[in-house]
Amino acid sequence: MASAVVLLSGGLDSATVLALARAQGFACHCLSFDYGQRHQIELAAAERVARAAGATSHRVAHVDLRAFGGSALTADLAVPKDRSDQAMGEDIPVTYVPARNTIFLSFALGLAEVTESRAIFFGANAVDYSGYPDCRPAFVEAFEQLANLATRMGVTAAGPAERVRIHAPLLHLSKGQIVREGTRLGVDFALTWSCYDPVPAPGRAGAHGPWAACGRCDSCALRRRGFAEAGVTDPTGYAG
Amino acid sequence: MASAVVLLSGGLDSATVLALARAQGFACHCLSFDYGQRHQIELAAAERVARAAGATSHRVAHVDLRAFGGSALTADLAVPKDRSDQAMGEDIPVTYVPARNTIFLSFALGLAEVTESRAIFFGANAVDYSGYPDCRPAFVEAFEQLANLATRMGVTAAGPAERVRIHAPLLHLSKGQIVREGTRLGVDFALTWSCYDPVPAPGRAGAHGPWAACGRCDSCALRRRGFAEAGVTDPTGYAG
Repeated sequence: MASAVVLLSGGLDSATVLALARAQGFACHCLSFDYGQRHQIELAAAERVARAAGATSHRVAHVDLRAFGGSALTADLAVPKDRSDQAMGEDIPVTYVPARNTIFLSFALGLAEVTESRAIFFGANAVDYSGYPDCRPAFVEAFEQLANLATRMGVTAAGPAERVRIHAPLLHLSKGQIVREGTRLGVDFALTWSCYDPVPAPGRAGAHGPWAACGRCDSCALRRRGFAEAGVTDPTGYAG
Repeated sequence: MASAVVLLSGGLDSATVLALARAQGFACHCLSFDYGQRHQIELAAAERVARAAGATSHRVAHVDLRAFGGSALTADLAVPKDRSDQAMGEDIPVTYVPARNTIFLSFALGLAEVTESRAIFFGANAVDYSGYPDCRPAFVEAFEQLANLATRMGVTAAGPAERVRIHAPLLHLSKGQIVREGTRLGVDFALTWSCYDPVPAPGRAGAHGPWAACGRCDSCALRRRGFAEAGVTDPTGYAG
């Protein structure tokens, strides 16, 4: 069985990507990152999602993005709430982590080399994340180019079939289409976590323990809209 | 003053790169990595080298390459000793860390974005490290391409002068030429550290405290040859 490395955040998108890779017959080595994000809940969600999908392995790499500051996801800035569509579409959001996808794909590449995986899957999306430079098709293509020059298996590839490929199957899908695709593949979205700013919810049971999604950050807003667009019931427990 | 990010291992090569960047007038933000390498001595050396060169800042990012295994620099494999030139030139050495330069440059890119640096300097060398895929000119070019697609400053660059540039000034130099270049620029090579496999040397004084370089690993062998080729006295305390 061919193997793949799958970047798995524990969110809705990467859970769908993992399901797609599994449906294509790949043995999947999942990789998550502990980069000092506020929401360690994500990592627990990633572990559950990996297990539910029958992943071959799941690793968490600790990386030190806090040294750079510059983002609401890693520094002590306020997560924006209740933003209009226009505000969400404008500029590069404060939740942007400098070079994050480049760093994450680089680690994926290292793991790909060690596990002899010629496929790397990740959930970049150019529709809802148009403000992030590293979620664009040209970025994905440039990384694939790099991957084949940076690695033993890339430089020794005998032909196109042996080249490293970066799969970004969600690149051109709307959030609603992603929810429909995940639903078709049997993803249990109740296991996934999207919120940037979890709210304590004492006594709440379920996959995420006593935590509720805020319901108001950009990530919650996109998630809610995705389920609404898809006409699929959202299993998320929102606080507001 | 234009600023630059300089990848600084604490070795002879990166100390020379930093001196070159300083000589070109850049304010230098140095970045070293703690990736579970055996030789933490390197990090202390990097700190001293940065200070001696008048760097603007020096950061150490902790990264987790051990999760991947697969290298004598991070796993528990023996460091090869006393290898012939032929053996050192053959294949990809066991000291190769999967995707290491890709990962290090990705962090440099994050720091470049935060410090608004359009220059990234690193000491890749295609002569003595011909076995490493990520020390080749095509790799450097591919990363520069990626850097300009992956970052805010890259995608908003108004013209060539604002593009991110990856400087690899040692790419085509022999170790002897690097030693000569460093000497010309006033690098104090006694502060630098190259050895993959330090030997305790109780009572020894000097920049590296009670440690001696083994004198026999590939990195020591290249260093010794570099000084010999350059006709420069090697200030290193070797054990053997």
